[in-house]
Amino acid sequence: MSTYVLVHGAWHTGAELEPVAAPIRAAGHIVHLPTIRGNRPGDVKTTGLAEAIQSICDYFTEHDITDAVLMGHSYGGMVITGVADRIPARIRRLIYWNAFVPNDGECLNDMVPPHYVALFDAVSAERGDGSVVLPFPIWREVFINDADLATATRSYELLNPHPNKTFTDAIKLGTNPAEMTIAKSYINCTEDTALPHSLPWHPRLSSKLGLFRLVQVPGSHELCFSDPVRLAQAIMDAGRD
Amino acid sequence: MSTYVLVHGAWHTGAELEPVAAPIRAAGHIVHLPTIRGNRPGDVKTTGLAEAIQSICDYFTEHDITDAVLMGHSYGGMVITGVADRIPARIRRLIYWNAFVPNDGECLNDMVPPHYVALFDAVSAERGDGSVVLPFPIWREVFINDADLATATRSYELLNPHPNKTFTDAIKLGTNPAEMTIAKSYINCTEDTALPHSLPWHPRLSSKLGLFRLVQVPGSHELCFSDPVRLAQAIMDAGRD
Amino acid sequence: MSTYVLVHGAWHTGAELEPVAAPIRAAGHIVHLPTIRGNRPGDVKTTGLAEAIQSICDYFTEHDITDAVLMGHSYGGMVITGVADRIPARIRRLIYWNAFVPNDGECLNDMVPPHYVALFDAVSAERGDGSVVLPFPIWREVFINDADLATATRSYELLNPHPNKTFTDAIKLGTNPAEMTIAKSYINCTEDTALPHSLPWHPRLSSKLGLFRLVQVPGSHELCFSDPVRLAQAIMDAGRD
Repeated sequence: MSTYVLVHGAWHTGAELEPVAAPIRAAGHIVHLPTIRGNRPGDVKTTGLAEAIQSICDYFTEHDITDAVLMGHSYGGMVITGVADRIPARIRRLIYWNAFVPNDGECLNDMVPPHYVALFDAVSAERGDGSVVLPFPIWREVFINDADLATATRSYELLNPHPNKTFTDAIKLGTNPAEMTIAKSYINCTEDTALPHSLPWHPRLSSKLGLFRLVQVPGSHELCFSDPVRLAQAIMDAGRD
Repeated sequence: MSTYVLVHGAWHTGAELEPVAAPIRAAGHIVHLPTIRGNRPGDVKTTGLAEAIQSICDYFTEHDITDAVLMGHSYGGMVITGVADRIPARIRRLIYWNAFVPNDGECLNDMVPPHYVALFDAVSAERGDGSVVLPFPIWREVFINDADLATATRSYELLNPHPNKTFTDAIKLGTNPAEMTIAKSYINCTEDTALPHSLPWHPRLSSKLGLFRLVQVPGSHELCFSDPVRLAQAIMDAGRD
Repeated sequence: MSTYVLVHGAWHTGAELEPVAAPIRAAGHIVHLPTIRGNRPGDVKTTGLAEAIQSICDYFTEHDITDAVLMGHSYGGMVITGVADRIPARIRRLIYWNAFVPNDGECLNDMVPPHYVALFDAVSAERGDGSVVLPFPIWREVFINDADLATATRSYELLNPHPNKTFTDAIKLGTNPAEMTIAKSYINCTEDTALPHSLPWHPRLSSKLGLFRLVQVPGSHELCFSDPVRLAQAIMDAGRD
């Protein structure tokens, strides 16, 4: 029996991962689904990356979590990397699910194509409260390309505006991921085009982990909506010793 | 219910796609299987790319097709790109199935390895009527690598000599695919080595589409013969809104 | 009915391939599982590549094997390439399963990342008898990433120290693989990270074969332990005419 802490990506909250947690709990594990500061109802959208990371560290201490398998999805990779740097003794293994892997001094936008950075900045400037949202055609075609239109629409309606500052803040790390002694896994959904395959998640970002276990499954960036049971199995394959 | 127009690749006719059309029709859609000028019984093998494109535009007007999901396989990608440029108002979505994606001024041979161009030119020179054929060992090993020998042999016997001029003619486009506002999908068969994986279909050619939906399935370049039902499902996943 | 000769990789013997041979035999084929000199109980660990190759050539003559489908796994690719160069008339088709493909004058270490070469040299220097072993964390995370811990541990205990000289000896070939007229196939396990995906088996090494048939299956470098039945089917798909 393991303790899983699953950290969502940008625009999501922990609640969207409940259908993923269910099969993991049914297999006998404990699963936590915290929501990162900046994505909770009522949070200000000027939240930065350091506050986001601190909120998950606080979750660990508040719930006295130890020996955790800590997973981050997409932007959540920035967050779990910071958490692992700050409280390594509480973590048994890190899992990056199509997630960003930063070294000290990098921000999320350093790892995405320029046209995304331009889009985020334009949308954020227009909204004026520090938040960014995804246009639906991008969501439908390259984030959740494996689902039908009804699932794409229903899931889009669950998203919340995301604090753009968490994309532009450089992370401060004492130890880069490749030098961390915590065990590491990378889950790669093979049809994930949220990053274009010419500038891919794997092996471009995964290789920054040093020694890591690869788990691949068919699916898009939003497998949590399109096939949560398949994702749950991949998480357990990635999270076991 | 959608209207699908499936455009075959080089050496094929529409008839070879009947086993692919059957499950799509069974799901309630209309499916058209035109044969491109140059590949019909009796066609001269000096046909060029512009005539090939025009023959599919003519098919649309003759059958009064509108709101179509238009798919092209391999060389068919050259043809559907030209059709979309000429009659965009009749097309709802383009699907490229391991297909060439040209920009204005490019020919098919610009996107294949030099050893194929040399082979096509040598075979065409020997035949003398403007046509090119594929040697069986290439067909068996890199076009239909996922089938048994009986399927490889049976399908090879269905092929017709292909007009080499359609490989060397540059396409004339008013709008390149990335700038077309029509929705676009790319189906990538993951074992398709008709183009070597060092010079692959995806993401090398697919990325010329701009925003597009990726669908991947196991299979070779000739999944229409080795598993037409799986291909039909991929087409419907690629073709839905 | 075909005759298969399956040649194991470094640290293995033929015995570990028995669960792979069983379904191939059940399908009506003959399967040989020789062990390469240097990996047999009692073999000196100063064995070089030429002796390793010769031991499989000897196996062919001792058992009077002709018209063989000859497969090599990993390091076994070095060996079968040498065998095919020396006794081509006895071989119907070569299968490389996530295997090294050398040209004349290359050694195995020319095709692996520098950190592996450094590791092999350090381990070999420490052991002093010419042999090299794999640390368990590397085995578990990047060789057999698709299995549970029990399978990883059980299989690790079957491994034997491998002669490092077979990694550093340059192969002598009269004909490079791309110019060999024997039919060739490459089986690529899509989660095989024994070589990192930034420096992959396929297409980096497979493309050295010239014309070859690609077969891909999900799995790690050690699919012989994690799913021998799936591997057996891939071998038969790769080995048929």
